[in-house]
Amino acid sequence: MSQALSTDRVPDVLNEKCPSRQALNHVTSRWGVLVLIVLQSGTHRFSSLRRRIGGVSERMLAQTLRVLEEDGFVQRTALPVVPPHVEYDLTPLGQVVAEKVHALASCIERNLDRIGPVQDG
Amino acid sequence: MSQALSTDRVPDVLNEKCPSRQALNHVTSRWGVLVLIVLQSGTHRFSSLRRRIGGVSERMLAQTLRVLEEDGFVQRTALPVVPPHVEYDLTPLGQVVAEKVHALASCIERNLDRIGPVQDG
Repeated sequence: MSQALSTDRVPDVLNEKCPSRQALNHVTSRWGVLVLIVLQSGTHRFSSLRRRIGGVSERMLAQTLRVLEEDGFVQRTALPVVPPHVEYDLTPLGQVVAEKVHALASCIERNLDRIGPVQDG
Repeated sequence: MSQALSTDRVPDVLNEKCPSRQALNHVTSRWGVLVLIVLQSGTHRFSSLRRRIGGVSERMLAQTLRVLEEDGFVQRTALPVVPPHVEYDLTPLGQVVAEKVHALASCIERNLDRIGPVQDG
């Protein structure tokens, strides 16, 4: 075969058809970024995540967790107890990605006093 | 004064009122991420950026560049020639942030074969 299959090509986020573009969108989504950062500190329940992430709605947090779980970044564990107890953790892959996301967020926080309108001329 | 001004507080992206949250949203926006990555390779004109970033519309690219310029990540230079010639570069601050964004995107590209639905049980 003279042409490689799409999945054999080198991943490239600049190519809109590459699946890496979609995965990048998920981990850089408005709430995905913050979920990854909070889960870096360890296991959390839904309510605890929601408390930590200022401004997130129940619906958006649930949707974000579902997408990150489908990608394999987050692991959801339902403990067989009454009442139900569900925990969220990073997977090993999620940990690797979360470190990069955290580095970016820390960089923004550290340089916040340099961010803002630049002077003309 | 017993209470520090808002801008004197430690920046925290988890706080929805902190300006670092907004700056983080800008650099992790769907197109912001990709603009920063492409500009890491050097100066680009609008048309060149648009060619490199698969799927971006003229309108969204213009809007993204404007936001990144306002934050001080991107510098826009209009050369005094006919016809008009406008160039885009990263500022020193933009370079620092773009490195982190690039590291995240590379991490996703490198691990693409591990990303996807996880097996149950």
